[in-house]
Amino acid sequence: MKIIDIIEKKRDKQELTKQEIEYFITEYTNGNIKDYQAAAIVMAIYLNGMTNQETTYLTLAMAHSGQILDLSTLQETIVDKHSTGGVGDKVSLILLPLVSSLGVPVAKMSGRGLGFTGGTADKLEAIPGYQTSIPMEQFIKNVKQIGISMISQTLSLAPADKKLYALRDSISCVENIPLIASSIMSKKIASGAQKIVLDVTVGKGAFMQNREQAQKLSHTMIEIGKLANKETVCVLTNMDEPLGYAVGNVLEVIEAVNFLKGDMPEDLKQVVLELGKVMIQLAGKGENLVENEKKLLENIKNQKAYYKFIELVKNQGGDISYIENIEKLPKAQYIEPIYCEEEGFVQDINSKEVGKLAGMLGAGREKKEDAIDPAVGIVFMKKVAQKVKKNEILAYIHANDANKLKEAKVRLKEIIKISSTVVQKEKTILEVIK
Amino acid sequence: MKIIDIIEKKRDKQELTKQEIEYFITEYTNGNIKDYQAAAIVMAIYLNGMTNQETTYLTLAMAHSGQILDLSTLQETIVDKHSTGGVGDKVSLILLPLVSSLGVPVAKMSGRGLGFTGGTADKLEAIPGYQTSIPMEQFIKNVKQIGISMISQTLSLAPADKKLYALRDSISCVENIPLIASSIMSKKIASGAQKIVLDVTVGKGAFMQNREQAQKLSHTMIEIGKLANKETVCVLTNMDEPLGYAVGNVLEVIEAVNFLKGDMPEDLKQVVLELGKVMIQLAGKGENLVENEKKLLENIKNQKAYYKFIELVKNQGGDISYIENIEKLPKAQYIEPIYCEEEGFVQDINSKEVGKLAGMLGAGREKKEDAIDPAVGIVFMKKVAQKVKKNEILAYIHANDANKLKEAKVRLKEIIKISSTVVQKEKTILEVIK
Repeated sequence: MKIIDIIEKKRDKQELTKQEIEYFITEYTNGNIKDYQAAAIVMAIYLNGMTNQETTYLTLAMAHSGQILDLSTLQETIVDKHSTGGVGDKVSLILLPLVSSLGVPVAKMSGRGLGFTGGTADKLEAIPGYQTSIPMEQFIKNVKQIGISMISQTLSLAPADKKLYALRDSISCVENIPLIASSIMSKKIASGAQKIVLDVTVGKGAFMQNREQAQKLSHTMIEIGKLANKETVCVLTNMDEPLGYAVGNVLEVIEAVNFLKGDMPEDLKQVVLELGKVMIQLAGKGENLVENEKKLLENIKNQKAYYKFIELVKNQGGDISYIENIEKLPKAQYIEPIYCEEEGFVQDINSKEVGKLAGMLGAGREKKEDAIDPAVGIVFMKKVAQKVKKNEILAYIHANDANKLKEAKVRLKEIIKISSTVVQKEKTILEVIK
Repeated sequence: MKIIDIIEKKRDKQELTKQEIEYFITEYTNGNIKDYQAAAIVMAIYLNGMTNQETTYLTLAMAHSGQILDLSTLQETIVDKHSTGGVGDKVSLILLPLVSSLGVPVAKMSGRGLGFTGGTADKLEAIPGYQTSIPMEQFIKNVKQIGISMISQTLSLAPADKKLYALRDSISCVENIPLIASSIMSKKIASGAQKIVLDVTVGKGAFMQNREQAQKLSHTMIEIGKLANKETVCVLTNMDEPLGYAVGNVLEVIEAVNFLKGDMPEDLKQVVLELGKVMIQLAGKGENLVENEKKLLENIKNQKAYYKFIELVKNQGGDISYIENIEKLPKAQYIEPIYCEEEGFVQDINSKEVGKLAGMLGAGREKKEDAIDPAVGIVFMKKVAQKVKKNEILAYIHANDANKLKEAKVRLKEIIKISSTVVQKEKTILEVIK
């Protein structure tokens, strides 16, 4: 087999075989296929597309390019939850202890934030003592012991995807359905899940800018799931404005803890419940979605979810006194309000811009190596469509640098757009596709 | 300017600006743009195409990536002749001394053979003593002195094209009209010609497999010529079977010398006359094409063309005794006939296969570094459509290796296809486009 023939085939819009795709991925991971040949084939895929069958072969080849986590010793159906990325997205922190408290086993490896999107691993590490890097045996043992473990992605899962993603990034080939779908699904398959729930975010702060693109991506991932025998459900959620009120690592932990104690922002609540009821169903712990939702709400009310979170934090080496008393968590040096300058309605809070702003303050990273500041970020007091009065506080900026604070104030004022006329609130849950 | 934005633009089928194309070519030649980024843009060009304006910018950027030969001291209109490559193509050896004998100045730099196509420089070097590598001052001085100089491409003309061509070759992006057109035209422009005659070969042994493709390529090159102020004429010629009878370096020199002495194979004659009359016209040495053809034939008859060739060889350091007595030229150890096994008509002599066979015998090279054997090759006794009898000789194989001879016999028998019914002879000159 020769890579030049494989490039030619995809260039000419022909369908690649399983063997050809496996050859490409294996030899590219080995370094036997050069970056420029991979670049040519990736651009050809970008422009000529791939069938669902090809995309599945690509996904599986990438999944098998490194270790595949074996979760079979758990002897339960493991449902993985993944979000395609957002701003203020603390859903995993809430949802996973919540479903765990209902008997759904959770073995979750999370990524770190990059660019304008946050990562669950960073948020967990904002809790003093919480160990996100633990050996795999311990990870599985923790799940067996208390029904949940949440860690960072320590294993070299799907190294081919990592290499290909870096290449795509350097040749303007990131935004492509088959390539995004195979990238996501390869990591999910490598992380050992049997079933997958995907929060496919849509809008200004998401990979998918519009619903049509999100639907296409969802259908592709569901199809890969079918062909790879991993049942997959996609929940399309709105990511035009940040989810909930808080953006920033400690700030989001606080919002998550408050949620688990019953203080639930409406949009966040909808996302948690929608994903939760599907997870319970996929895990075989409840067929009826309406019933599942009731159980979820009940375990918030009776604080079982909150105590499951406390148990998780403790089991991972975290100091639970920071959860029991969230005031103890590290605070930023400057906490300053942004005032509303005119009466009206919140028209727009562009979540991508908010993500970038939080990153500028130190909450995110541009490069993988960058350190992050857990305390900084933004806490909104208003959401899109809410009525606002002059001099009301729209948001607080949490900063550890006076210059950055100054810049953030100017930028945030521009980001929060006020309209003099009534603004229509968009739906949070757009669609469930399975 | 960022290469990633340029890739994105071409990926999205937008037209690149002069500045963007120049940036790409300059920085790629410098090594500041990586091969994988160039590969992505080349594949995007392959699949999304380029306008004639973009192709011209690419051509000029590549032409200016190295030295541009200055032929202005010759104070005459220099017309360059170029063939897109063929098998048995000894046209330059005949045509250029011929037009020179009619006062058309010839300053010709030729390439070497690669793959299944031959190169004029290799053929010239088959003449003992002939220097194809001489300093540029000497080259220009020779043209001034005797009206002709033919050398190999010693200068680093259009280094960007060289680099890009090697890349295209390794990522299945060779056969693409804008890329082929800009590659050819950049070298012609860099070699200092004011006007250009292109022999665009069509058929089995050519880059362009069919007439439609050749027409497209021609129109693109003519358009580049217009935009770059270099009048260009394309002559489409048939390359289904080898041109003339001989394939191999010494063998083709012999055929060329015999032609100049009046022994003109019909197809070769047509190509030489067609290109010749256009060259005379472009050089401003004769407006009337019919008259030009007459002059060409006259200078064959009166041997002025032959003596111009002798003068050229002498002036380049060649030993003219080998031309005056072609029997002196190196001969292969084995010269063996191929017999016809059935009565009929020659149906096909696939020139690509013949080129490969000659290469196998040692007449060509696979890699640039390979040495070639000037003596070996094939001399056909029959052309397509000719009637043949059983046991008639179809061709002679000239070989210097018994095993290769053996293999060549088997392969050549398969290449020369005989039909029991009459075969229609194809036209040699398909079209002239200007």
